[in-house]
Amino acid sequence: MIKSLSSLFSPSSIAVIGASRTPGKVGRDILVNLKKGGFAGPIVPVNREAKRILGFRAYPSLSAYGKPVDLCIIAVPRSSVTAAVEDALEVGVGAFIVISAGFKETDQEGRKIEENLVDICSARNVRVLGPNCLGLINTGHAMNASFAGPMPQAGVISVISQSGAICTALLDLAAARGIGFSKVVSMGNKADISEVDLLAYLADDPETRVIVGYLEDIVSGDAFISAAEAASTKKPVVMLKAGTTEAGKKAATSHTGVLAGTEVAYGAAFIRSGIIRADHFEDILDYAVAFSTQPIPAGKRVLIVTNAGGPGAMAADAVENAGLSVARLDTATVASLRERLPRAASASNPVDVLGDADPARYASAIEAAQKDPSVDAIVVILTPQAMTKPRETALAIAGSITREKPVLAAFMGGKDVLPARRELLNAGLPDYGAPERAVSSLAAMCGYGQWKRRPLRVVTRFPVNRRRVERILGRHLRSGRFQVGDAKAKEILAAYGFAIPKGVLSQSRAEAVEAAEVIGFPVVMKVVSGDIVHKSDLGAVKLGIATRQEARDAYDLMMLRMRELAPNAVIDGIHVEQMIPQGLEVIIGMSRDPHFGPMLMFGLGGIFVEVMKDVTFYLAPITHAEAVQMLKNTRSYAVLSGARGRPPVDLDALATCLQRISQLSKEFPRILEIDINPLIVGRVGTEPVVADARMRLAGPEDRP
Amino acid sequence: MIKSLSSLFSPSSIAVIGASRTPGKVGRDILVNLKKGGFAGPIVPVNREAKRILGFRAYPSLSAYGKPVDLCIIAVPRSSVTAAVEDALEVGVGAFIVISAGFKETDQEGRKIEENLVDICSARNVRVLGPNCLGLINTGHAMNASFAGPMPQAGVISVISQSGAICTALLDLAAARGIGFSKVVSMGNKADISEVDLLAYLADDPETRVIVGYLEDIVSGDAFISAAEAASTKKPVVMLKAGTTEAGKKAATSHTGVLAGTEVAYGAAFIRSGIIRADHFEDILDYAVAFSTQPIPAGKRVLIVTNAGGPGAMAADAVENAGLSVARLDTATVASLRERLPRAASASNPVDVLGDADPARYASAIEAAQKDPSVDAIVVILTPQAMTKPRETALAIAGSITREKPVLAAFMGGKDVLPARRELLNAGLPDYGAPERAVSSLAAMCGYGQWKRRPLRVVTRFPVNRRRVERILGRHLRSGRFQVGDAKAKEILAAYGFAIPKGVLSQSRAEAVEAAEVIGFPVVMKVVSGDIVHKSDLGAVKLGIATRQEARDAYDLMMLRMRELAPNAVIDGIHVEQMIPQGLEVIIGMSRDPHFGPMLMFGLGGIFVEVMKDVTFYLAPITHAEAVQMLKNTRSYAVLSGARGRPPVDLDALATCLQRISQLSKEFPRILEIDINPLIVGRVGTEPVVADARMRLAGPEDRP
Repeated sequence: MIKSLSSLFSPSSIAVIGASRTPGKVGRDILVNLKKGGFAGPIVPVNREAKRILGFRAYPSLSAYGKPVDLCIIAVPRSSVTAAVEDALEVGVGAFIVISAGFKETDQEGRKIEENLVDICSARNVRVLGPNCLGLINTGHAMNASFAGPMPQAGVISVISQSGAICTALLDLAAARGIGFSKVVSMGNKADISEVDLLAYLADDPETRVIVGYLEDIVSGDAFISAAEAASTKKPVVMLKAGTTEAGKKAATSHTGVLAGTEVAYGAAFIRSGIIRADHFEDILDYAVAFSTQPIPAGKRVLIVTNAGGPGAMAADAVENAGLSVARLDTATVASLRERLPRAASASNPVDVLGDADPARYASAIEAAQKDPSVDAIVVILTPQAMTKPRETALAIAGSITREKPVLAAFMGGKDVLPARRELLNAGLPDYGAPERAVSSLAAMCGYGQWKRRPLRVVTRFPVNRRRVERILGRHLRSGRFQVGDAKAKEILAAYGFAIPKGVLSQSRAEAVEAAEVIGFPVVMKVVSGDIVHKSDLGAVKLGIATRQEARDAYDLMMLRMRELAPNAVIDGIHVEQMIPQGLEVIIGMSRDPHFGPMLMFGLGGIFVEVMKDVTFYLAPITHAEAVQMLKNTRSYAVLSGARGRPPVDLDALATCLQRISQLSKEFPRILEIDINPLIVGRVGTEPVVADARMRLAGPEDRP
Repeated sequence: MIKSLSSLFSPSSIAVIGASRTPGKVGRDILVNLKKGGFAGPIVPVNREAKRILGFRAYPSLSAYGKPVDLCIIAVPRSSVTAAVEDALEVGVGAFIVISAGFKETDQEGRKIEENLVDICSARNVRVLGPNCLGLINTGHAMNASFAGPMPQAGVISVISQSGAICTALLDLAAARGIGFSKVVSMGNKADISEVDLLAYLADDPETRVIVGYLEDIVSGDAFISAAEAASTKKPVVMLKAGTTEAGKKAATSHTGVLAGTEVAYGAAFIRSGIIRADHFEDILDYAVAFSTQPIPAGKRVLIVTNAGGPGAMAADAVENAGLSVARLDTATVASLRERLPRAASASNPVDVLGDADPARYASAIEAAQKDPSVDAIVVILTPQAMTKPRETALAIAGSITREKPVLAAFMGGKDVLPARRELLNAGLPDYGAPERAVSSLAAMCGYGQWKRRPLRVVTRFPVNRRRVERILGRHLRSGRFQVGDAKAKEILAAYGFAIPKGVLSQSRAEAVEAAEVIGFPVVMKVVSGDIVHKSDLGAVKLGIATRQEARDAYDLMMLRMRELAPNAVIDGIHVEQMIPQGLEVIIGMSRDPHFGPMLMFGLGGIFVEVMKDVTFYLAPITHAEAVQMLKNTRSYAVLSGARGRPPVDLDALATCLQRISQLSKEFPRILEIDINPLIVGRVGTEPVVADARMRLAGPEDRP
């Protein structure tokens, strides 16, 4: 698969079907770009009438040319695309870029043509980029096979984008900032080649140091996660995902004609696979420049060097807000700085070299401070004051750093600092117009560093009673019941190692009373019915039943209520259950995302979930460390760990519950939803108990 | 006071004490800047030796010059400043700018000299800017009385800054972006003239349309709030306040030698006075440009017009994240857009005019959509695609808008869109490189509009028993007790209209039992002692006492515990109190900020405050509407308003409690802290009851 992308990225010859002499036509722009880009191999314009275009000999068809080509770019109207592709396949072709639009994004007919196109190419093992894309640029191959504008400067950043406009905006912005690219790929409709292929290709591409991307949806969750994780392991991958809010999602969906996955699942997938998330357009290049020029920091302790107090304070605010920390310098460092700096300077962090600092003073401060073992990264701020020499200071900073720790510059201002920006760029130092942007990029690097240093992921496999679950689910599915009620859900959970209260399903009042006696008072009684989901609302649950008489009363009353309120419900019986000792109520859930599969949910019960929305998510399968992290990521974690004099709950046991749900979800794809609400967690050494549970299975309309 | 600032901003003549011929000296830079700035009146350099400097006749002293000057700029070493000031005062001077450093920011001696300087000037009614500042620029007066760099372009934005470096960075950034200024004031140490004077001056300055500022601390809370509120009423005031985090505050404090007020109080003061808060350096100019060129939106419904779907989705995300809304267009608008746009375009919001949109199509879409009454503001996005004409599109947009609603442009990219940026600037359209920044500026405008439209602030004055509080506080202060315990705190609260449980202070077991009988079981018993604050920990509180025997037991046990655990505490007796019916526990508090005075706090009791930190603050005095808003601003508001089947609590009654605490705090400055924890709130129609309360009074060491 990857091998076949070499015809796309590094072809030896290129045909342009729909090449044109008419200015303003895409077929002409592409030919101009190919020519100006300096592509070294043969370029074959195909045009029904023209004999020569832009100095190249043109042919009426590729078969008229008669020789195979490596890459075939198609820029003809939709109605002619299939014929052009078939013609090319006849002659022989390595890969296609279909620029033409009017396919899936337009109407059903377009979708059909697009699908057929991919089918006939796949049959010949030929890959397709697009349709509805801008094309592809590979500066290292002197190939601008796009109409995205002029050839960018060469560089080590590669771009994959689902929006052509984001490509052109990035190219234009980078041109102004003097930033270069290795590859720029506009993915268009992703009929064949998608982010999965491109991540795999660019991960192994020695010319790409950082991958950046813009995504609106993904083609396959599992494939995406494994490609992204593999790529992130080799180099940083920065992604902007649009449609994160309801309004944004609606906007993204309406223009691409695809259903965007749930935002929460994307977030979980990015975290799992080490993708560095860009929240804003400007973050993309900001982060990419930092990653492409600086080493990953070993920790998050930041040194700030500045020639003014105000911006130093702003940077310190930004550091703390980003979850990094302002490094506390060693006393030896402070002493050394005191020696080097004037008396009025601040020798502690932020190090203020004062408004009259010359280049040498900056260099001297950085030289002294960068050795400090309690410093992981450095942000150097310059404001253009009367005696400031921005350009010379940039050079001095570049000369003073060891490049063992990341150094990010924030040269504030515009006009006077411009020459300095160029020097910083040349010296491979990322530069930002504001301290907050430097810190934000540094935070992205720290996050990636942390992901890289994560422990090996070992997913525990618990011994479980799979057969029993198969039997229960089988019975439900055969009888067309897709809701699994409390009693059966508990049986399933018990088979996966959960503690459930002792309970008996009784079919008569006498059985119920006897069961209560055997279990021991107090007990809980619940109506068992696949047709009733919200039991409390219908009076189908009664807690704290303490005597035989109360048990009798509860049974009769429940049956009465059911006849009144749910006359058509099939009642399997009354479940008599041990009362669970008091503890903290938590909620564990699972819902199956259409893209990313089972997504686990955790939160504290009641108000915490319903009002405070204090829940965390993670994609299955989950490791123990990740499960513990899920607990820690709730805002209410202090309640679990023993706030307000409460004994801490058994966090390990709780994490294990999440792992067991993870395993259950992975092993039974027919289970679409699991809801344990509440799970009662006690102090360390006790086992959490399932107080109430339900599941939903895939019906015939769901495609699990 | 304001009148006297005219000598500072628009002097007829200027002297520069310490004017110099030596390049690199501040005294020379200022003279160069004055000259290059084109100042029209006499310029008098004072230098001990030189006869002429830069073509101006120089004098050894101002008395040698012999005539009064309007503005006197001082740029001599600290040791010579006082003499120079005295000399100038002798001759006659309207105002001083003291550029020289080495005062409060350096050492105690510097602080003394600085204070003395202000004293001698105040005695002559002469105002002082600085010391330790860059000076002042007034483009409308052709005056660059600073060493902040060359004269900026003229404009309608005025800057006040506590950091000279922020001034120079803003000036340099604005120069690159083509943005002009009216006044730029570096405040330095603010020995005399501070933000309060400058806000008042600039609020009335017809040449200033927007005030922007950078603050690290303020001189006086009350004066600041009233000056800021008055200024905000006339024009937008955008402020960046550094030191918002612990790390940032430490950084800010260490370099200015002032104690920064609590961040929460600053936030509350900004909200009260309508100040638009800039969180990042880039926000300052971003917001200022929007405010200086566009009308304030009437609401927060945003129309997005774009030539690409991706950036449209990004903008929609940003709109929703900023608390604004993506406008739902009228059907008539959608129909009109459908007529004007190609079939593939999106005629609903975000309006996608497609990648091949020419200037006319942009203009046509904006013309149609801006009339829609459900649109309050417009964000126009352009990405530079193959057929895009950025410059012509900028002109077309400028020509198509009615200027009744704010229009903000986000022309994404760098090189190709540069000519467009200039046109947008010339046309008075704010332009941002990324949709998120345009939306962020728009959100700032919406926030300001909302503040401007706020209802008239009417602070209710409740009839209270002030004398009773005076007596209680008097007794405490006379006996040197600064902690007010539960019983007395409740008496004070009762005098201010709070419902408190029935209670009797008993001095013996027999009295206690009788009191319990009279109040009616069940009761609560509490030890009353100014020496014991955390009663529960010492067993000094017993709830739910139901019988005479239990009352006897509780009394004896408490007294025993006190003898054991707090043998030196003065026990005033045992307070026997009615048990409060169940309700929702909330916390109301007040702490007196050193700058801004009484700050009210509200939160839901227990875990919500302690773990979730879900509290809101507001400065006293508070109106009913503001008190209700305080409740609404908690994340847990849904619990108050009836989440999870709970009946809603009486929000009006709760808001009234906040107002009563506001009045109490304002009327008794000796009360430093009030803590009602918990206040029990019941359903609508019931009165909240104070379950436990304490206060702290100002001791001799506090200066209330």
